[in-house]
Amino acid sequence: MNYGIHLDTAIGRLHDEGRYRTFIDIERRKGHFPHATWRRPDGTSRPVTVWCGNDYLGMGQHPDVLSAMHEALDATGAGSGGTRNISGTTVYHKELEAELADLHAKDAALLFTSAYIANDATLSTLPKLFPGLVILSDELNHASMIEGIRRNGGAKRIFRHNDLDHLRSLLEELPEETPKLIAFESIYSMDGDFAPIEAICDLADEFGALTYIDEVHAVGMYGPRGAGVAERDGLMQRIDIINGTLAKAYGVMGGYIATSAKMADAIRSYAPGFIFTTSLPPVVAAGATASVRHLKTDQALRDLHQQQAAILKLRLKGLGLPLIDHGSHIVPVIVGDPVHTKMLSDMLLTDNGIYVQPINFPTVPRGTERLRFTPSPVHGPLEIEALVKALDALWSHCALNRAELAG
Amino acid sequence: MNYGIHLDTAIGRLHDEGRYRTFIDIERRKGHFPHATWRRPDGTSRPVTVWCGNDYLGMGQHPDVLSAMHEALDATGAGSGGTRNISGTTVYHKELEAELADLHAKDAALLFTSAYIANDATLSTLPKLFPGLVILSDELNHASMIEGIRRNGGAKRIFRHNDLDHLRSLLEELPEETPKLIAFESIYSMDGDFAPIEAICDLADEFGALTYIDEVHAVGMYGPRGAGVAERDGLMQRIDIINGTLAKAYGVMGGYIATSAKMADAIRSYAPGFIFTTSLPPVVAAGATASVRHLKTDQALRDLHQQQAAILKLRLKGLGLPLIDHGSHIVPVIVGDPVHTKMLSDMLLTDNGIYVQPINFPTVPRGTERLRFTPSPVHGPLEIEALVKALDALWSHCALNRAELAG
Ligand SMILES: Cc1ncc(COP(=O)(O)O)c(C=O)c1O
Ligand SMILES: Cc1ncc(COP(=O)(O)O)c(C=O)c1O
Repeated sequence: MNYGIHLDTAIGRLHDEGRYRTFIDIERRKGHFPHATWRRPDGTSRPVTVWCGNDYLGMGQHPDVLSAMHEALDATGAGSGGTRNISGTTVYHKELEAELADLHAKDAALLFTSAYIANDATLSTLPKLFPGLVILSDELNHASMIEGIRRNGGAKRIFRHNDLDHLRSLLEELPEETPKLIAFESIYSMDGDFAPIEAICDLADEFGALTYIDEVHAVGMYGPRGAGVAERDGLMQRIDIINGTLAKAYGVMGGYIATSAKMADAIRSYAPGFIFTTSLPPVVAAGATASVRHLKTDQALRDLHQQQAAILKLRLKGLGLPLIDHGSHIVPVIVGDPVHTKMLSDMLLTDNGIYVQPINFPTVPRGTERLRFTPSPVHGPLEIEALVKALDALWSHCALNRAELAG
Repeated sequence: MNYGIHLDTAIGRLHDEGRYRTFIDIERRKGHFPHATWRRPDGTSRPVTVWCGNDYLGMGQHPDVLSAMHEALDATGAGSGGTRNISGTTVYHKELEAELADLHAKDAALLFTSAYIANDATLSTLPKLFPGLVILSDELNHASMIEGIRRNGGAKRIFRHNDLDHLRSLLEELPEETPKLIAFESIYSMDGDFAPIEAICDLADEFGALTYIDEVHAVGMYGPRGAGVAERDGLMQRIDIINGTLAKAYGVMGGYIATSAKMADAIRSYAPGFIFTTSLPPVVAAGATASVRHLKTDQALRDLHQQQAAILKLRLKGLGLPLIDHGSHIVPVIVGDPVHTKMLSDMLLTDNGIYVQPINFPTVPRGTERLRFTPSPVHGPLEIEALVKALDALWSHCALNRAELAG
């Protein structure tokens, strides 16, 4: 067996398609977000502005978060030293779970090491709890949901993105006594569009289905206390399981579900991805708790975030760039070809000190390769100006289409 | 559909079998490991000694680790703000990967958010890279390996624990041209026994199979630089993929694989569990780097660890307790019944301030329920004395068998 040849083939395929990923080595500087230092492969470095981070509100440098983390380090050390069941449950984990349950007005929340594993572990465990469960899943659901739904070979139906008629027809095909779950996201992170949450909940009620929502790109940012789009729309109590992350708007790391006491107890007891792994370090839990707590009241920061996104979109539209705008905080500019997208990204980085990663298949469908900008409260007028100018020049220089693929 | 009834059934089953898990809320106090504060459900608290943690060397309170973490927090903030590909690769991640590659004398290392996800993501991705791959898996492999092997429905053969004849017979049944991988652990964490690594590598060579080893309960603790049992036995270069954790002996959080440059590149490029999740916080990576670096030279700490384990085993054997002793640092005492195990654990906690979690199915096979003690360099003579006395009294009080199931 020549195993190396198989690896060459697999890697070669990526090069051929222009979607081989090169990681850019970036160090953000606390107090100076979104400014960062880019370390080039040759060891030299230059200052850059990060335009593709998911620390959407800059909470990763918030003094409350950092002081909670310093304190936890001093009080209890580095790691938790165990799985949740075997010495790895601390007051930091309990407090964070209580904070998150309160945030979503649910009985309970369950922490995972990431929202990836929260999705994967929860969705792969539900069929064990509800024998015969059929999961109805939006076709654009995140990889972590897809992995969870597929994992144990459980039954699933994929509905066309946000297509209520299709979802209804799939539900109609299922026997009444079949347990069902509709799994979807509140904001789809690559297009920035919203799900029709209320209409999905109506269908769930009509057909006796459970609802599962991924609010990973919404928690902290939407709703009067930052609980997400379902909170904003007054729909939280109609969702059975809410999934969120502590790694994006909350600026730290970790994931969770918020749900009923019984559901949390069952997932806690049956999900290998929850049971058989070391719990989050107390220092991480402490930082996340401080962040969630802070964002329960800081509406001004949320408003500023939306305002920055609106300004950036307005400016880019003014230039006629092919922008997708569904009214969320995410600003995708479609290029439509992996090689061009990578080239644009490279030029922005090298010539302008603007860091925006090319987004290629499989993260987005082929032919919709894009630059995805994430404005935030820490991106001021100067940063926006520099970005707009650079994009304008680049679009002219490369004779790229304007406003073609805009949605 | 009454979903609640299904949840009641699932949870009821655990209560009926006496294996419903209650998490014990513990806060270790930095500088005072293994001492901790137990917060009872009623809000009161009492001091306890943790005897079941996996921070095997007490590195979670090591000054080098903590100062690296404080510094990273001050320099770069809380989280990484992105996935590895999208703004979440920092100098902290690169340094840690370089440190780990060096540790295992491999070209490359790849960081994951945990060793759970490192196992799951890697083992589920390998069949995509090597079409037709058959994974030969030790029957006692950890849940995270099992999940990874099962995930995509790839072909597998389970060999009896550490049984080379069985492994050989399974290999013999496979066509020569079939790609094969043998997956096993260096130390099985619940019994503390070692795999016959060299003999497995010989079989792998004979049959042209790749080798995958989980050194989660060995890294930091075995080998002259703490690279694990394969290092101790001079076998590292015969293993294709080494899996390790940063959450146990290294005292922080995170997992990794160390392997060839090509293999790392392919896993990096194809494993959803690596790609689609926020990278570890720089603060966590910084702490882990400091810990790995420190343990490359601190042989005295490793010796002390083994010494403490030897003392504890000697003392418990002296009492005739049914101890499993395979010469590793793990000290399991078999009780053999989930209800009794839980009762013993409760009595130790409540009456003696000794915290050792009962280990039940599915973590260990039914009928082998146990208390699993993890002595460490921070467990001094006083702590050992208190534990031995308490166990002796308890075994008499409960009229439990002595030295029956010892292995
Ligand atoms: C053998 C083994 N492999 C992997 C893991 C997972 O490691 P981590 O805690 O880093 O997820 C564990 C325990 O947690 C383990 O015991
Ligand atoms: C929609 C969605 N769900 C889940 C995740 C996973 O979150 P985490 O980074 O906490 O693993 C991500 C991205 O990382 C995401 O975009």
